Parts: sequence; C-alpha cells; structure tokens
Amino acid sequence: MAELVFVGLGLGPGSLPHGALDAIKACDMIFLERYTAPVPDDEISRLSKLTGRAIEELDRTAVEKGDAIIDVAKKGRAALLVPGDPMAATTHLSLRMRAAAESISVRIIHASSVFSAIPGILGLQHYKFGRTITVPFHREGFAPTSPYESLVKNTEAGQHTLALLDIDAEKGRYMTSREGIEALMTMEKKVGGDLLARGALCCIVARAGHGDCAIRAGPVQEMLRFDAGEPPHSLVFPAALHFLEAEALVAFAGAPKEILKGK
Amino acid sequence: MAELVFVGLGLGPGSLPHGALDAIKACDMIFLERYTAPVPDDEISRLSKLTGRAIEELDRTAVEKGDAIIDVAKKGRAALLVPGDPMAATTHLSLRMRAAAESISVRIIHASSVFSAIPGILGLQHYKFGRTITVPFHREGFAPTSPYESLVKNTEAGQHTLALLDIDAEKGRYMTSREGIEALMTMEKKVGGDLLARGALCCIVARAGHGDCAIRAGPVQEMLRFDAGEPPHSLVFPAALHFLEAEALVAFAGAPKEILKGK
Repeated sequence: MAELVFVGLGLGPGSLPHGALDAIKACDMIFLERYTAPVPDDEISRLSKLTGRAIEELDRTAVEKGDAIIDVAKKGRAALLVPGDPMAATTHLSLRMRAAAESISVRIIHASSVFSAIPGILGLQHYKFGRTITVPFHREGFAPTSPYESLVKNTEAGQHTLALLDIDAEKGRYMTSREGIEALMTMEKKVGGDLLARGALCCIVARAGHGDCAIRAGPVQEMLRFDAGEPPHSLVFPAALHFLEAEALVAFAGAPKEILKGK
Repeated sequence: MAELVFVGLGLGPGSLPHGALDAIKACDMIFLERYTAPVPDDEISRLSKLTGRAIEELDRTAVEKGDAIIDVAKKGRAALLVPGDPMAATTHLSLRMRAAAESISVRIIHASSVFSAIPGILGLQHYKFGRTITVPFHREGFAPTSPYESLVKNTEAGQHTLALLDIDAEKGRYMTSREGIEALMTMEKKVGGDLLARGALCCIVARAGHGDCAIRAGPVQEMLRFDAGEPPHSLVFPAALHFLEAEALVAFAGAPKEILKGK
C-alpha cells in the first residue's frame, strides 16, 4: 500500500466531504497546506478532533520539495489537505507527477471551489464565463498587464470574467477587492484602455462558501469604495447579461436597476 | 424561520460536505432532484440513513414549478439536494429568485463540481480554460452548431475547452463520450471546419469524482473508439499545452508522447 490522497477542504468550515473523514483516518500521516487559500487555526483544530488525528502544516517550500509527503506515502498512506478543490492550484501537480513516477497510487477527493461556486453565488451562468484571471500583488520588476488584457478580450467576446485575487501567505496578506480593482485600473492606464474608466459593472464576492458570504454589484468606481470585510475576496466583471442574470444581480447583490434595461 | 437550503451533493458518493449533515437534519422536508446529473438509488438510501430523514425526489417540472418546496420553506425550513454544486445548474436560479421574492432566506452549501474538478483531474491549468460548451442530444428541429464554433474560437485563442454532455433524465439517457464526439464532428461538417478532422487532441473524463474515475487522452479519432464505461462522461479539447500539462496527460491519461514535443 503506497498511496497519496489529495483531500479538498472546500470553501469554509464544514465543507470537507463527509466521505473524506474515513479516508483521512486511514492515513499514516496527515499534512496540510494553507498557502493557496486561508484556513483558520480553529478549523484545523476542528478537523483534528473530527478525525482524531494530528495534522502537520507544511509551507510552500516543503510541499513543493515534497520529500516529507513522499517518504510517508512510499511506505504507507499519506494525506495532503488542501483548501478548496485539491487539484485546482497548479502547485500540486508536480507532487502528483512525482508520486506517479515513484509508483505511489494517487487518490483525489474533490471539494467545493471558487471556480464552480462563484458564478452560482451571483446568479450568473457558468457557460458565459471566459478565461479566469489572477490579479497579482505589485512586486519589484513584476507588473504584468495581461490580466487586464484578458478581461477586455473576454468582455468583447461577451464572456464574464472571474478575477481571483493574490495571496501572500508568508506575510498573511490577502488582496482585498479594493486593491484588486486598483491594480486593474493601473493596468488599464498603462495600456490605454477605457473599460473600467467607462464604469464597467463589477461584482465583489467576499468569503465565498462561508456562512457570512457577502456579495455586491455596481459600477466599478462605486465598488472601489465598498468595504467587503474579512478576506478572501474575488471579483467578477460580467459582460452582456441575460435578463435573468441581471434580475439576480439586482435581487441578491444590490446592483442598480438600470441593468435590467440593458446598457 | 422561513428558510430554503440548497445543498450540493458533490460528485459521486461521499462528496456531501460533512457540515451539511446537521443542516439537513434541521430541515422540515428534504427534497432531491437528479435530472441535472445522475444520483444512484443506493446513494439516496445512504443519505437517508446518514441524516435519519426521508428524502423526497422531485422531477424537473416539480422543481421548476417550485410550489412544494416554497410551501415548506415559507412555514419552516426546506432543503433541496442537488448533484454537484447546487447553483451550477441554471435551472435552480428561478427557485432562488422566487424564495427571495417571498422573503424566504436562502442558504447555499457548495460542493464539488465538474467545473472545478475536471481540469485538475487531467492536470490542466484552470486559467487556460475558455468558455464551457454543452453538447446536446439531437432533437427534432434543434441542431445548433454553436458548441463547435465556441470550441474553435477557444482553441484559436489558445484556450482549453470543457465540453459537458447532455442528459435526458426522463429517458435515463446520458450522452457517452462517443456520442459527444460524433455530435461535434457532425457540427464540424455542417459548418465546414477541420479542427477535429485534422486529429485534434481530445480527453475523456468518465465518472469525475467517483472512486472509479477514468481518464484517457489521444487524437479525437482514436477517442471515438474508446469505451469509457458507465456515465457520466465529459470531454476536454486542450489548446496549446504547457510542458507540465503535456507531461501530465502522458503520465495520467495515456496521451501519445509526441505531444511532449509540441505539434
């Protein structure tokens, strides 16, 4: 038995699939990462109690190096707990490849993820979403404009855009909706665009899948002033709306009624 | 207390979020639909045992009419169990809107979904997926070519395409990977395209999120002959691959090694 089980914790407390509890209990060691999304300390204690097992946190370097996990999996069974869906972050693909190369069998227990949850929270249709973008924190020598350019391309093609916001786990920093909008506005100025300047509709989703999930929609300049509270936050920029989608944004997210008439 | 809880069953047995068990137990009536994806009878019995509650199945007409659910939710608490993520299917948006209009508070318990799971199962990057398409069964007077056209547009823009396959729950029919590929080939002939005829790479994902999930990748003509077994099936047509993505398809899905050199 050489096995590595990737287990999704899903979005927020209580989201771990119930079938995963037995799978976790059967493992020799249980590792956890929380650099791809926040997991509060008390949620880790709760999981430890539920499964009756100690949970060892690994940082990004340790997960990417992978030795600690592979050593356990080679001789028995290891679990890696991952926020959201366990294979949504590309960072875990290398570990899975390495396990396969060492003849360790891999099992994936899927869970809820922003990719599937956010369109539905807003009442928007999955089929109308184009490519997802990620808005990065400003780093020395790293100032891409490609996220903004993808947003414009999606919008012109009539496709909604999900914008994921950066996380700097080491510093405990989660990009807020405001910082995300500002970063996109900076990119827009750099490339000389006007989508946002013209008052594009913007949706904020705060704490998707948590009990206190909050959503808000309106012109991007207004959303820039909106305080969405605790992280994580995500943004959605809808393209042309179906009538039902517009109704949902007005009913659930406080969008202005003018969007019901089209723009 | 007037509440309607949309509960995601996730993909396959054991995928219900563990926190949903208490939420379900607290409801006056528990409804279930399985017309947006299959849920086996024994999974319903298992859920009924786990929660200690009877589960009443509603067909599409009853869910879309909504009266049975709204009547319970108005006076207390109703749950609607939905395969996958409960808000991924657009069919439930109307019920949510009606609940809001009748001052019934709505709670959403998210779960795993093909939208988030399938890219990761194949080792493909979420960020590289364009618009999702759905391949419909042939129906009298309904023969759209738009799914094929969206596939071509995604591919030309360097974006992968997830193709969901149709379900006819009344007839218990689930489109197989073979039928899906055939339908897309028919559309291609109709519009005079050649993406598939030229041997595009195609991935089959059968039973995503189930214990016996199977994946396979190769030229579309070869995939046409592949028997993927029990439904549900989905297809993915990758555009230009990152080297790691190509490696993953070779390692996990039996894709030909030539894709490692680019095409």
